[in-house]
Amino acid sequence: MLPIRFPEGKPFDVVGLGENSVDHLCVVPRFPGLSDKVRVTRYEMQGGGQIANAMVACRRLGLRAKYIGKIGDDALGQVALGELAREGVDTSGVRVQAGTATRLSFILIDAASGERTVVWDQDPRLSLAPAELTQAEIVCGRVLHLDATDVPASVQAARWARAAGVPTCIDIDHVPPGAEELIGLIDLCIMSEAVPRELSGETDRERALRAVRRWNQHGFLCVTLGSEGALALLDGEALHAPAFAVQPVDTTACGDVFHGAFLYAALAGFDVPRALRFANAAAALKTRALGGRPGIPTRAEVEAFLATRP
Amino acid sequence: MLPIRFPEGKPFDVVGLGENSVDHLCVVPRFPGLSDKVRVTRYEMQGGGQIANAMVACRRLGLRAKYIGKIGDDALGQVALGELAREGVDTSGVRVQAGTATRLSFILIDAASGERTVVWDQDPRLSLAPAELTQAEIVCGRVLHLDATDVPASVQAARWARAAGVPTCIDIDHVPPGAEELIGLIDLCIMSEAVPRELSGETDRERALRAVRRWNQHGFLCVTLGSEGALALLDGEALHAPAFAVQPVDTTACGDVFHGAFLYAALAGFDVPRALRFANAAAALKTRALGGRPGIPTRAEVEAFLATRP
Repeated sequence: MLPIRFPEGKPFDVVGLGENSVDHLCVVPRFPGLSDKVRVTRYEMQGGGQIANAMVACRRLGLRAKYIGKIGDDALGQVALGELAREGVDTSGVRVQAGTATRLSFILIDAASGERTVVWDQDPRLSLAPAELTQAEIVCGRVLHLDATDVPASVQAARWARAAGVPTCIDIDHVPPGAEELIGLIDLCIMSEAVPRELSGETDRERALRAVRRWNQHGFLCVTLGSEGALALLDGEALHAPAFAVQPVDTTACGDVFHGAFLYAALAGFDVPRALRFANAAAALKTRALGGRPGIPTRAEVEAFLATRP
Repeated sequence: MLPIRFPEGKPFDVVGLGENSVDHLCVVPRFPGLSDKVRVTRYEMQGGGQIANAMVACRRLGLRAKYIGKIGDDALGQVALGELAREGVDTSGVRVQAGTATRLSFILIDAASGERTVVWDQDPRLSLAPAELTQAEIVCGRVLHLDATDVPASVQAARWARAAGVPTCIDIDHVPPGAEELIGLIDLCIMSEAVPRELSGETDRERALRAVRRWNQHGFLCVTLGSEGALALLDGEALHAPAFAVQPVDTTACGDVFHGAFLYAALAGFDVPRALRFANAAAALKTRALGGRPGIPTRAEVEAFLATRP
C-alpha cells in the first residue's frame, strides 16, 4: 500500500485539471516520409486530451470523476464537452473561452505497429490562470490529478490540495518552466520517460528516476515506458512492472489510461506492484480500439484480463 | 504555341472536374518521427483539393472557371463550397452527397523547408460516377481540366470533350486502374514525376516521359518536378524549365497552381517555354503563404515577378 491517506466524505473520488482536446485520428498504412502523400485507412474524430482521458478511465472503472479545463466556443468544444458528459464525468468546471478554438490533435496511427504520432495545436488563450480557479472545486475530490499544461495553475492547485489534505497525482511528458516546483508538490509522480532524463541530465533510466528525488523527497516516483511497462521506486528499490504483450490497434492515450487506472488502484488500496499491474492491464486493453477512449476497460474487464495472465 | 485549338463562344474558359477537400494545415518545427509528439507553430483550416485549387488559380489569373465535384453534407462541405464561391468560381456543378463527410487532408508543413506531407481521407460515397455527369456541363468551357480521382467519370468527360472539340488537361499523381486509357484521351498531360515511371517502369526521367507516348500519341507531355521545375517534350525534344528559387513557406498545391497557370498560358496562346515559365512563376508565388490558395497570384503579380527574373 502507498503511504498516502485519501480523505473521505468528498463529492468526487478524483478531480482532474489539465488538458482536453479533440483528436483527429488517422490510421495510415505506413508512416509517411517528408513530401509523402498517404491515404488513411481509417479516420475518426474523438474527444481526447490527457487529463480528460484519465477522467474517462476513472469513470469507466467506477470512480466519481470531475474534469476542470478550458474549451473553445467552437463546435469542437461541444464535441469535447458532450463526450465527457456522456461518460458521466462531471463537466461543471469546464470553462468556455470566447473567441477561441478548442485544442486539436492530429494523431497518425501506424497500422502495423499501432504506434501513434501526435501533432497538436492549442490557442494560447485556452491557458487557465491560477486566478480562474477556486479552491473549493480543486479540493472536492479524494485525489487531484494534474498535468503540466498550465504550470502556474497546476502549482496553485497542488498547493491548495496539500493544504486541504488531498493527495496529488501528475501526468507530465515534458519539462516546461516551473516543472521542478510542480513536481515537488506531487504525491504520485508518474512521468514520461523523457522527463527524469531532461530534468537530471542522466541518460540511464533508473538513475534518472532516482535523480528526481532532488525535487521530490517523499512522493511516489514512476516512469511509464510504453510497450515496456513502467519503472517505479518502492522503498528505495527500483521496481519494473512489464507491460502486457498485445497487438495494439492504437497506442494513443495509453499513458493517460495508465494514470487513471493507477488512481483507481491507489484509492482501492492496492499495493504498488498490484497497482502497476492493474494500470498496465488497463493500458493494454485500451489499445484494442482506435482513439483514446473507446478501448478504455471497465473494472470487470481489467479483472477478467488479469485472470488470464497469471 | 501549342498545336491545340481552343473553341470560342463558351460560357466558361475552363471547367474542372475532380478533387476538392478541406485541408487541415499544420506547420511543424520539425517533421515528426514515429511515436513523436510535436506542437504545431501554426494551424489553419482551408479549402483545398487539386482541381478545386486549380480552378481558384485560373480565376485569380482572370479566367472564367467552373468546378464540378462532390462534397459531403457536413459543415466542412459548406466551407469548401463557400471558399470556391467567394473566389468567383462557378459552383453550380457541385454535388452534395447525403450522409457523407467531405474529403479531408491533414497536411504537415515542415517549417524549415516548406515541404508538405499529406495524409488524406475520402468517403467512397464521394465518388462521382459517369452517369451523374451531363455532357452539357462538361463541354461548357474552352478547356476541360481533369484528375484521376474518379477514373470512369474522367474518361467519360474526356470522351465528351473530344467529341465536342474541347481540349483536355490532366493533373495525375498516381496510377489507378484505367489511368492508361484516361491518359490516352488527354491533350495537355501534365503528370507528377512518379506517374511516367510507374506506367513505363523506366527510372530515367526523360526516358520515362518519352515512354508515355505509348499511351498518348499526340498530346503535350510534361512532368512537374517540385523544386526542380518541369520537364516537357516539345517537338520530340526534352525541354527542362527550372523552377524559380524561393524560400517556400508552404509547397502545398504548387502542382495544382502550376496546372491552373499553364491552362491560363495555353489559352492566352503563349508558346511552350513561356507557358512553362509562367506556370513555374505562379507556383513559386503560391509558396509565399500557408495553404493551397492564399498565395495564388494574380496575372499582374506573375508578370511583376517575371519582370524581376530575366
